[in-house]
Formats: sequence, C-alpha cells, structure tokens
Amino acid sequence: MTGIDFTVFKGSPTGKIVESKTHKESIKTDEVLLKITHAGYMVLGHEGVGIVQQVGSQVTSFKVGDRAGWGYLHNSCGHCEECLNANEMFCAERAMYAYSNTDQGAFASHAVWKAAFLFHIPDAITSSDAAPLMCAGATVFNVMYLYNVRPTDRVGIVGIGGLGHIAIQFAAKMGCEVVVFSGSGSAKEFYVTRGASKLEIGRPVKHLFVTSSRIPDWNLFLPVLASNATIYPLTFSEGDLAIPYVPLLSKGLRIQGSFCASRGAYVKMLTFAAVHRIKPITEEFPLTVEGIEEAMAKLDNGEVRYRAVLVAGHGR
Amino acid sequence: MTGIDFTVFKGSPTGKIVESKTHKESIKTDEVLLKITHAGYMVLGHEGVGIVQQVGSQVTSFKVGDRAGWGYLHNSCGHCEECLNANEMFCAERAMYAYSNTDQGAFASHAVWKAAFLFHIPDAITSSDAAPLMCAGATVFNVMYLYNVRPTDRVGIVGIGGLGHIAIQFAAKMGCEVVVFSGSGSAKEFYVTRGASKLEIGRPVKHLFVTSSRIPDWNLFLPVLASNATIYPLTFSEGDLAIPYVPLLSKGLRIQGSFCASRGAYVKMLTFAAVHRIKPITEEFPLTVEGIEEAMAKLDNGEVRYRAVLVAGHGR
Repeated sequence: MTGIDFTVFKGSPTGKIVESKTHKESIKTDEVLLKITHAGYMVLGHEGVGIVQQVGSQVTSFKVGDRAGWGYLHNSCGHCEECLNANEMFCAERAMYAYSNTDQGAFASHAVWKAAFLFHIPDAITSSDAAPLMCAGATVFNVMYLYNVRPTDRVGIVGIGGLGHIAIQFAAKMGCEVVVFSGSGSAKEFYVTRGASKLEIGRPVKHLFVTSSRIPDWNLFLPVLASNATIYPLTFSEGDLAIPYVPLLSKGLRIQGSFCASRGAYVKMLTFAAVHRIKPITEEFPLTVEGIEEAMAKLDNGEVRYRAVLVAGHGR
Repeated sequence: MTGIDFTVFKGSPTGKIVESKTHKESIKTDEVLLKITHAGYMVLGHEGVGIVQQVGSQVTSFKVGDRAGWGYLHNSCGHCEECLNANEMFCAERAMYAYSNTDQGAFASHAVWKAAFLFHIPDAITSSDAAPLMCAGATVFNVMYLYNVRPTDRVGIVGIGGLGHIAIQFAAKMGCEVVVFSGSGSAKEFYVTRGASKLEIGRPVKHLFVTSSRIPDWNLFLPVLASNATIYPLTFSEGDLAIPYVPLLSKGLRIQGSFCASRGAYVKMLTFAAVHRIKPITEEFPLTVEGIEEAMAKLDNGEVRYRAVLVAGHGR
C-alpha cells in the first residue's frame, strides 16, 4: 500500500475556502476509510456521511460499501469514569471536531475514522437527510432523551433554524405538545416574539429548548414556564449566561447545559428518526470550494431553510 | 368560646421588634391551635415548633398535647396539577410565610394553622433542634432528595451557616463524600476560599450546594465540578444569576433552582434526621422582644453558630 491521499476543504484566515491534500500512510486496524458523500454545515465539516471504502483488520462493525455517519466526537479513552458510564463526550482525552484531527473533516473527498465512532445510517434515511442528524439532530434528541422529556410534557422551542426545526419534529413524534417561539412565522401553535412584551400561551411549558443564536429575553420567557421547568441553552455563546435569580428559585427552574450526544444516544436517535420519518429540511450545495462558499454566504445571511448539506458529485 | 387572643412579635419599619395582639374568633374545623415553644430565625418566624392546645372538629392527625412543627407553607388549593403531583409549594394559590397569614408566625405565643400543613416531630428530636429543621433542614434535605443526590456522589457545600452546617450532616449521613468550602475554618476535607485563585480538591464534585449569602466566584468553582454536575443556589439574591456560558455547555452542567419542600419531603426529612441523629448547632435566645432583637443583631454581625432558636419561657 502506498498510502491514502485525499482532498480536504478548509477555512482560511481570509475567510476563503481552500482545497488541501491530506495523506495517511494507511488506516489503523480499528479504523475505516470512507468516501464522503454528504456533509453538514460548519467549516471542515462536523456532520458527515459517506461510504466505507476500506476497513482495518480488527473492524467487524462495518464492511466495504456500508453507509456510515459521524459527528463531533472521534475518539475517547475508553477507560475513565466518564467513558465507563457512557458519557464519552466528557472524557478528558476525547478527540473532537475542531480540537483534534484538524487534517480532515466532512468537507473532504475522504476521511479515516475509528470504527467505534461511526454510525450505521438506517435504510429509511437518505444520506442527505442523515447529514444534519449527525450533529443538529443528535444534539436536540440527546437532550430530550437524556433529561427525560416525556410524552405528557408541553415543550417550547425557541427559534426555527438548523436545530429548532429538527427539535420540533422529534418532540412532536415523542408525543409532546409543541409550542414554537420565533421572531416571525406561522405554525399550528406558534408565537411571534419579535417586539412582544408578553407571551400568552395558555398552559405553561415544562421544557424550553433555546435554539436561537441569541439568548432570548428571559422576562418574556420565564412567565410561560411551568414550575420545575427546564431551560436547555443549545447554542454556544461567549460570556455569561445571566438569568433572573428570584424566579429561578421560586419556580424551582432548572438550567441544563449539554454537549454532544453519547454514541448510545446517537444510535437511539437514528433508530427513532428512521421509525418516525424525521426529515430535516435541507438545501443542497455542491461539495466543492464554490459550493461551500455559497452555502456559508447564505448561512451568514440567515437564508438557509433550514440546514445546508454539501453533496459530493452534485449535479449542478 | 369567646375567641383566641395571642401575642405576635413583628418587625417594624424602624427595625425594632414590636409586640402585637392577634385575635381569632375560633379555630376552623381543619385547624389546630398551638402554643409555640421554639422558633427559627426570620422575623415573624417561619420555622416553628409548638404544642397542640386545641384541634378542629375534623382534625384526626393531631391531638391535644402533640408536638408539631411547620415551615414556609401554610396552605395550598389541593386540586391543581402541582398539588396533585405533590408539588404543593408551587401551587398558584399557596399560602406562604411573608405572603399570607401575616397576622401570625412562629415569633408569637400561639398560632393557628391548618392541620394538613403541620408535621409531627419525632421523639428523637428535641424541639430546639426541630425548629431549624423546619426550613433550613427541609430546604437542603429536599434538594438532595428531590434531585437524587446519591451515596456514591461527591458533594460540595459552599458556606457553613444555618443551611450549610445542616447540609453537611445530611449529605454525610446519606453516604456522600462531603467537601466543604468556606471563607475560613477547618474540617476533615475543607478548603479555604478567601483569597484563593485556584482550588485543588482532587476528584471533582457532582453536586455543589451554594449556601453562602453571596454568589461565589464561578471561576474558582467551575473547575472543581465534574461533568454533568449540578449547582444548587440555595439562598435568595436580587438581580441575575450569571454563570460562564461555555463551561455550562461543554461540561453539561446543570443549575437547579429550588424552593421549599413538599410535605412528603418534610416527613422524609424528619424521619431521616431522627434515624441519623442529625443535630443542628443552635444558639438559644428568649422568645421575647429583647431576645429576638439580640438574636437579629448577632445574626446581622454573622456571629450566630449556626442557627438562632427563640425559646418560649427561656430561663435567662
């Protein structure tokens, strides 16, 4: 074997996407080489789907030709307390998108990953639909699953974007009543927040998923929360999260931070999505320098409805 | 019956304690008249213990001569969703210390309360020890019980005061490893935070009980929290609770607000305290105008170790 060469599309200081080459001498015994077919939206690509080209000698969970997807997490130590309790996303030695393996990602022709951190894509899910599930989908499903959102709960979703539009589907299919809050728009039970000084939603919500890019006005949202309700901030932000102190205590509210999903949660998410035909609303772009730049520009302008997917060999 | 007259010690705009008279025509069928023997520390008295003098015709749970205690909550509607789920402390029609029944409290000669919101004091607990358990004890026990603090968890207590010194005892008796953080002091596993820029505690803690009167420096405490750890702010404060956003998400932290305990949690707390000989460290003062003023002054100066108890007929 003379090694594996493939193309990776990276960001650059100028903001332009640049095409680079990555070389691997060979895959390791526990790794898999994939040809990438679909990628989600962040630079370097943290949501990927591809077809297995080659498997390491010890890999038994994938075979050549299988479809596989991956997300944020690429490796963990396997023996610390977090790993042993299926919280590998909190392993101190985790290998993670943007922090390790920066020579490859989903914006590329190929990638080599440990088989243990790849997921089979159920037949019922197209690769284009699977890509946004590998992070956006996993992130929102994980929170509902891990923190025990129940079918009898009324759930509020703040923001309809990459995460929000999938969260709405998952919560609805879990049997929850779903209340959607957004700057503008319309839906079955939908409340416009732009310019609102008070929200009248009838019965309060038990879980509030904050998927908007900005922290919402708590004075607007705390009154629509039930006692013992939980707020899940799902998008990263700098600085402090500040929330009025007295209502936090007197209503017994909970703020639950969360990170990416464990592998166990990924498998449950994909199975649930396949069974219930959860279908992200995607906009496809070619997985090329031009396609990535076009997708990023539309994303910056807030024009993507609702998740961009980069597609290899796109016809356009 | 010509009615019931009794003395109530109230706060006043000047800060002085004033003695007033309260008159009840009679007790209602579901109420109990108590002679107060012991009271906890806030003006009007929100932690009370007394001896039943008279019971309403429908009261079957108490009889004359019984010892009974009470806390923040005096009534709830009994039929809303919160009440039906044993969350009566969140009932929209709750009757609560400082918001209703302001003509009486634990700083008084007598009080009339609904039997359904009184608790039997186990024989193993003295009335003086029971008084601080009726709010401080219930508050910390409730959080450990409701949010599932487990014997295998490492628990941090910030601040050693009225709440903190009882929280230490409950957590230790539940089998937890207890780590204490305070401005100054010494104990088995004890960390001085005053002037510290970094805390080295070995294994991180899973639950952090903030019982100090001020919000601690999160930059000091977030690094000693385990992934998935929960922070419980237990003392009221004005304004916002502000906490660094990125660690909240990347460590999957939880902030859990809480209020007073349900009645079910009170009963469990008193039973657990009796079985494990939980004993608040108290300082007694006479339940008189002078005694209350003396206790308040010591409290303001941070000199009470660790909970003031006002005692009727105190020998001094």
